[in-house]
Order: sequence, then structure tokens, then C-alpha cells
Amino acid sequence: MAEKITPRNQDYSRWYTDLILQAQLADYSPVRGCMVLRPYGFALWENLKNALDRRFKATGHENAYFPLFIPMSFIQKEAQHVEGFSPELAVVTHGGGKELEEPLVVRPTSETIIGEMYSQWIQSYRDLPVLINQWGNVVRWELRTRPFLRTMEFLWQEGHTAHATHEEAEAETRQMLEVYADCAINEAAIPVIPGRKSESEKFAGADTSYSIEAMMGDRRALQSATSHSLGQNFAKAFDIKYLDRNNELQYCWTTSWGLSWRMVGAIIMVHGDDQGLVLPPRLAPIQVVAVPIYKTDEERGGVMGAIEKVEAALGESVRLKVDDRDEYSPGWKFNEWELRGVPLRIEVGPRDVAKEQVVLARRNRPGREGKTFVPLSGLASAVTDALTVIQNEMLQTAIEFRDANTYHPTDYESFKEAVSKGFALTWWCGEIACEDKVKEETKATTRCIPFDQPGGTGECIVCSGVAEEVAIFARAY
Amino acid sequence: MAEKITPRNQDYSRWYTDLILQAQLADYSPVRGCMVLRPYGFALWENLKNALDRRFKATGHENAYFPLFIPMSFIQKEAQHVEGFSPELAVVTHGGGKELEEPLVVRPTSETIIGEMYSQWIQSYRDLPVLINQWGNVVRWELRTRPFLRTMEFLWQEGHTAHATHEEAEAETRQMLEVYADCAINEAAIPVIPGRKSESEKFAGADTSYSIEAMMGDRRALQSATSHSLGQNFAKAFDIKYLDRNNELQYCWTTSWGLSWRMVGAIIMVHGDDQGLVLPPRLAPIQVVAVPIYKTDEERGGVMGAIEKVEAALGESVRLKVDDRDEYSPGWKFNEWELRGVPLRIEVGPRDVAKEQVVLARRNRPGREGKTFVPLSGLASAVTDALTVIQNEMLQTAIEFRDANTYHPTDYESFKEAVSKGFALTWWCGEIACEDKVKEETKATTRCIPFDQPGGTGECIVCSGVAEEVAIFARAY
Repeated sequence: MAEKITPRNQDYSRWYTDLILQAQLADYSPVRGCMVLRPYGFALWENLKNALDRRFKATGHENAYFPLFIPMSFIQKEAQHVEGFSPELAVVTHGGGKELEEPLVVRPTSETIIGEMYSQWIQSYRDLPVLINQWGNVVRWELRTRPFLRTMEFLWQEGHTAHATHEEAEAETRQMLEVYADCAINEAAIPVIPGRKSESEKFAGADTSYSIEAMMGDRRALQSATSHSLGQNFAKAFDIKYLDRNNELQYCWTTSWGLSWRMVGAIIMVHGDDQGLVLPPRLAPIQVVAVPIYKTDEERGGVMGAIEKVEAALGESVRLKVDDRDEYSPGWKFNEWELRGVPLRIEVGPRDVAKEQVVLARRNRPGREGKTFVPLSGLASAVTDALTVIQNEMLQTAIEFRDANTYHPTDYESFKEAVSKGFALTWWCGEIACEDKVKEETKATTRCIPFDQPGGTGECIVCSGVAEEVAIFARAY
Repeated sequence: MAEKITPRNQDYSRWYTDLILQAQLADYSPVRGCMVLRPYGFALWENLKNALDRRFKATGHENAYFPLFIPMSFIQKEAQHVEGFSPELAVVTHGGGKELEEPLVVRPTSETIIGEMYSQWIQSYRDLPVLINQWGNVVRWELRTRPFLRTMEFLWQEGHTAHATHEEAEAETRQMLEVYADCAINEAAIPVIPGRKSESEKFAGADTSYSIEAMMGDRRALQSATSHSLGQNFAKAFDIKYLDRNNELQYCWTTSWGLSWRMVGAIIMVHGDDQGLVLPPRLAPIQVVAVPIYKTDEERGGVMGAIEKVEAALGESVRLKVDDRDEYSPGWKFNEWELRGVPLRIEVGPRDVAKEQVVLARRNRPGREGKTFVPLSGLASAVTDALTVIQNEMLQTAIEFRDANTYHPTDYESFKEAVSKGFALTWWCGEIACEDKVKEETKATTRCIPFDQPGGTGECIVCSGVAEEVAIFARAY
């Protein structure tokens, strides 16, 4: 708390890690590239996890757990998959003091081992669809890491489903992307753009990959979750077959979809400011902090009495923390809870006690603008309303920021300028050569081809060839 | 479902794995010693997890997450710890295609890496106590494995706390053992015995270990959770110090405590019978299954109408499944849900429709004894009451079974007979030599020295020396 946060316009990347460390969301660990998720960060992740898990169950999915270790030979069964993941593997070669006959890979993702089990569990069309999700940890040997965004080990969920037809698998893939978008927008207040990944950006082993893309505070893109239609690629590699209604053996169609603690990084970067975190009320570990203000012992009695009334009024309806520590001043506490992003602060001083009121201060509107006086009698509904208003305003602010920094260039020069300062939404012919040129010259990549398309055709922003779709180009994390 | 379950008296161990596989709690995996937790087993684990997590939070603990990998040098810092865990380690030697400079151990438990972080986080007495829990996976290279009871990788929680004084650490250790006992007794209906482990049975690195011990259906013991008072052993190994109120540096006192999916194995073995699982209502993934009984289409209409009334009456108050599959007969369904241990079955046939009633059949009392007729009008409270009765009866039955198979031998010959057929609760002098003799001659070990002691002294059952405490001896999993 004594340290200062680097301002965003001075060093955005430094600001980001300052916030994480000082707000005690996470810490570096003694293992290179691995992060420790501290209780405050875990509670945020837990709220996000619960919000997602509810949606998974509501759409008919069940949780299960598959082994951490995968035989090396499994990874090698699907050609694109092994090519994509081989450079990133952590390998166990010794167990119980002996060298293993076959090395075990620490799962980078679980399509292969789950595929193997599905081939045993699925016999007939009656066994389909299989709709399973796993919450767990995975390891990818990354060289350049950054807390939440890219860590060697990370927490995530991975859904794996098997279906009788291509259409069902495709519908599942799109449904889960919608679940992610719904959760991002309505829980995290992050206005994501759902769309299809380009061929060069899709998952290793997928027919089609979809993603939700968000704009961070530095106007760069963050792929926030993905959903993959895996065709029959893994079904063929792992022999996942079913007897159809005509008693004929068919390969299944499978999907996978994942969201990781990277979304916590998105929450930090989309909403945070130079004072610290700004957490969306629906996910904030502490939604409301109450700070008593007094100088004398006499004042203290009255103020603490009012704080008790606040606690009684709010009950279990919100996640409330009363900061009654004597060793810190109110101003110090205000700073601390602003740094930690608590959406709403309740201040109670002697004058408020006299007037039977409290002050509500909204984190997303610093200063006078965000302050209101509320009578103690109507506190519960005033607090609930304020949290709803904050949640909505945060989403609205993020939408406005994204839209103000999304450009629609019509020539390559203005395109290059656009991707240097935000998103470029523009026609693209779909050729990898054009993606490669853009990447080389601007470091921007295609983020997704949004579902929301203008229709008709246009001129590819790079080669001027015929383009049937618009794509988002941006520099990305 | 077509397969038969091996009866317990024929082959208990085979009965156990038959149940797990046929009830689809878990499955073997292609990785030696690793198990797949299937959706039904995961849902049971998830209910247990939630019951524990609530209790952890109510006692002031927060969740966090620490790295899966631990540098080999960390494991070696605490002398007893390295001695205990070295033979069981899985070691990552390669990452990203290169050999690592220092091998990484896949955590067998996290005292060391968490100790390292605590040494950074804790500065003064104001930072204490630190009360953190982690839900996650750990790996121990076991040679002989058995689903749930002993698997190479397992899911568990591990609590790690740091305190200013020995007394506080000791109180925490005992409190968490009480939390485990409360959860075992009141959620899992397993009458565990809390006590202290002997010196030879304690955790590698602990000053004192406590455990809860349960009697399985074959009268063997299962250590169901442990809580350890670690003294200053890890604090000294990892330099976890705090400035006390007199501004002097002191080592912290730490604890750790864990419960794993092994508890699911206990639920299977304590309550299961030759028909299958019997799950305690509080943890059962499905608490009530409703099975419609009809032959003609006309009957079907009336019965399904009544089933809809059942669904409406029960609402969200219980975890209900309606088994309306047309391709299976009611008898087949009865068997399936008995195998899967659903505590309460609702049967609705044409005669019940006419009488505006349903049949309740209790899983823990097979046959006529467990059947009652209940009017549709009072269904909700009848079902809630029945679930409470079942939960209580299951605990009572387990207590009676345990007590009937617990002996109080007073000479070594009857002691040997006692441990061949159940628990022996008897005087022990505390010497390892006596434990060793018993182990060699009977395969039984001291399970714990129960908190509940008769007082006074007695004669050690082995050496006839003076004994100040009674201990439980039994053959254990």
C-alpha cells in the first residue's frame, strides 16, 4: 500500500502488474512462469467460476475429472494437435525414483485423454450426446509469461462433448460461445465480440474455432474464451464411434471449449484506472465496504452504532466488509479499498449519525460525482440499486471505449494507423498471405470474423481482392 | 448394468470395484494408478466439497491457489519431509523441449511451496493468523493403487495456516479435525473416531498428527482425514518469521490439514450393500428418483400426469430425477437406481393415481419394510421427512455396526483375534516396539489414540508395561 501505482499512460504493462501485486490478487512464485493466486484473486475467480458453472449446468453439462498425466503417445495421435502442442509440453520422465518406460505429459489440454475415455463409454446413439466439463489446471511451457494472461500453469475449465451429427456439434460449439459471451457481458461487464477465428489462428486439431474478443484499456485485444468444432478429427484419432439407429457404426463429432483465469486479467485491464482495480459488482469478492469516520471516543460510539445498523440492514443481501481497524485513518482505508476495486463504499461520520444517513461513494465514478447521501431507513434498496447502476455503467463505459477506438479503414494506410491505436473492423479476403503481411508490417493479427456481418462484399483491405466478410484486426495479448 | 455385482462375503475388494464401475462413479484410466472421476462420482465429490468449503469459510478460511510444480530443492529443506516423500515423487525433467536445470516435482502436498510464500507475506503479528485452504490435485507415486482409496493422482483440499503461538496452532489443528468429524458424521453419515496418531504414523514433518478413523463394511479401518500441528519445523526450514508486539523476530507455528476423494471410498464401503451403493441423502447427487409404472397408453397418461404433480410438489426442495425412459421396465429401473444408491424412490402406478397417492421406497431398508404409501397432497413434507429419517438411520446403522465390531481385549491372544475381525480398543504403552510387534504378527496398526479416554492407567496389551492411554488397533486400508 505504501508503493505507488505506475500510471497507465506512463507504462501500461507496469501499471497492470503493480495493480495485481498491490491489490493482492496474485503474486510471483519461485517457479518460473507460475503464479500464486492469492485469496482476493481466488475469490474473484471463484465468483466467475460459479457464474459459469451455473450456466454449464443449466445447459445440461456435468462436471467430471480426468488424469493430469497423458501418455506421450496419445498427444501424437492427432497430427495437427501434436504439431501445435509439442513445443509447449512439460514432461514427467521419472516416478517413484525410476525412469518411466513411456514419458508422461502434464496435460496442456485434455482432448486426447478424454477422447480415449469417450471411445470406451460411447457405444450407441443412446449414449449421445456426452456433455462433460472439467475444472482444473493445465501446463503449457511458455517462455514469456505475464500474470493471468499467459502463465505456465493456469486454472481453467475445458468442456468436451460428443455428438451424433455435425449439426449438433456445431450448435453446441456456438451455444457455449454464447454462454461465454453472456458471462463476459453480464457478469464481468466486458463487451466481447463473438466470432470465428481465421484458419491460421484456430485451435490445433479443430475444424472451426470461435472466440470472444475484448478490447483492453490500452486498446489491444484479448482473446477471452474459445469454442472449437473438432469435426471427426479426434473421433478418428481415438476411435470414438457409435452405432446409429440403422445399426451402422459412425464416428462421433466432438467439440471443446475453454475459459481460463485469463478472464481475470481482462477484468483488470478493461475496468481498472490509475487508482487501482474497479471490479464489477456481480463478481467482486467484496461488493460494499463500510468505513466509520470519527476522531473522539464519543464520536466513535455513535458512528459504530450506525455501522451496526448498516450491517443489520444489509444482512446477507450483499457481500459487505466493515473496515473497523483502529490503526488506519479513513483516508488510508479509502485508498486501500479503491486500489482493491470495491464497487461501493459506505462512509459514516458523526454528522451522518445526527442526520440518520450514510454516504455512498461509487468506485466507478471517483470524486463528488459518485457520492450520494442516503437515509439509513432505505439503505438496503439504495445499495442494491447502486450496485446495479454501477454494473450497468461499467458495461456502458466499456462499450463506449471500445466503439470509440474501433475504426473502419478503407485504405491500407489508414488501416495501419487504425491497428496502431485500436481495432480495425474491415473487409478481408480470407487469405493467409494478407494476414501474414499485416502481421509483419503492423504486429496486428485477425482477432475474429464477427458473427455480426454487414452482408454483401467489399475489397480486401490488404490485397484489394474480393472479400465476403469483415474481420477485426488488432494487436493482441 | 447387465453385469452382476460380486457379493461382499465372496470378495469384498471385488464388490468394491464392481460398485464403482457399474454405478459409474469412476473408471480406470490409461495412465497406471490414475482414475477418471465420472459425472456421478464427481457430483458426489462436489456435494462433499461444498459441505466442507462452507465450514472452512465459516471458520474464517479463504481459498487460494499455489503452483503445481515445486523445485526439488524445496522438498529437501525439511529433513523428515524429504525422507517421507522422496520415494513417491513424480519428477518433470523436461519442459518446452529442453532439459531443466533443476527438476520440478509435481506436488505431493504443498507445505514447502506455501511455506516459501508465507515467508514473503508475513512480516508482523498483524499479518497473523494466515488461514488459507487450497482445492486441487496432488500426485504420489503409489505402486499399489485402488480407486478413491489410493490413487497416483488425487483430488483433495489442503489447509495451511500460520500462527503466532503454539497454542493457537494447536487449537487450529484441533478445530479443523472437528470440522472433518462434523462433516463425516453429519453429511456422510460416517461415525468417525477422532484422535492422535502415534509417533510412527504421523505426517512427515509434523510435531503431532490427528486423524478421524472410520470402520469400513469389512471391518477394516480407513483414515478419512488428517490435521497436523507442524510446530516450527517448516517455519524454520522456510524462514517464516514475524515481528511480535515487542518488535522481536519470532518463528511462526504452522498447521496443515487435508481431506481427499478417499472419503468417497469410505461412503461406498460404510453404507453399500450387495445391491449397490447406498448414498446419504445430504450428499447424494440424486436424492429422489421418480419411476412411472404403466402398461397401456391409457395408464401412461394418468401416471405421467401424477408424475408432473410430483415434480411440481417437490420443486427445487430436493434433487429429483424423473426416469421416464420408455425403453426400460420399472423393475430394471428399480435395480439401476438401487445400484446407484439413490436414497428414496417414488413409484406411481395406475392404482396410486386412482387413490391420489404415491409409494415411497427407502434405499436403506430394502423390501416391504422401507415402503410407505403417501397421499400426493402431503408429498413435499413426507419426502423431506423421509430423507431426514434415512440420513439418521444410516448413521445409526453405521454406529451400531462399528460398536458391534469393536472389542476391548485384555490379553494378547484375544487381542490378536479382535484385530482379525474388527477394531481393538485397548491399553498401549506408546512404544514403537509394541506397534512393530503387532504389525508383524497381525498386520494391524495403531489407528489413533482417541480423544475420548477412560482416564487412569492400564497394562499395555503387548508388553504389559504401564499404559496411560488406550489406542485403536486395526487392519487398515
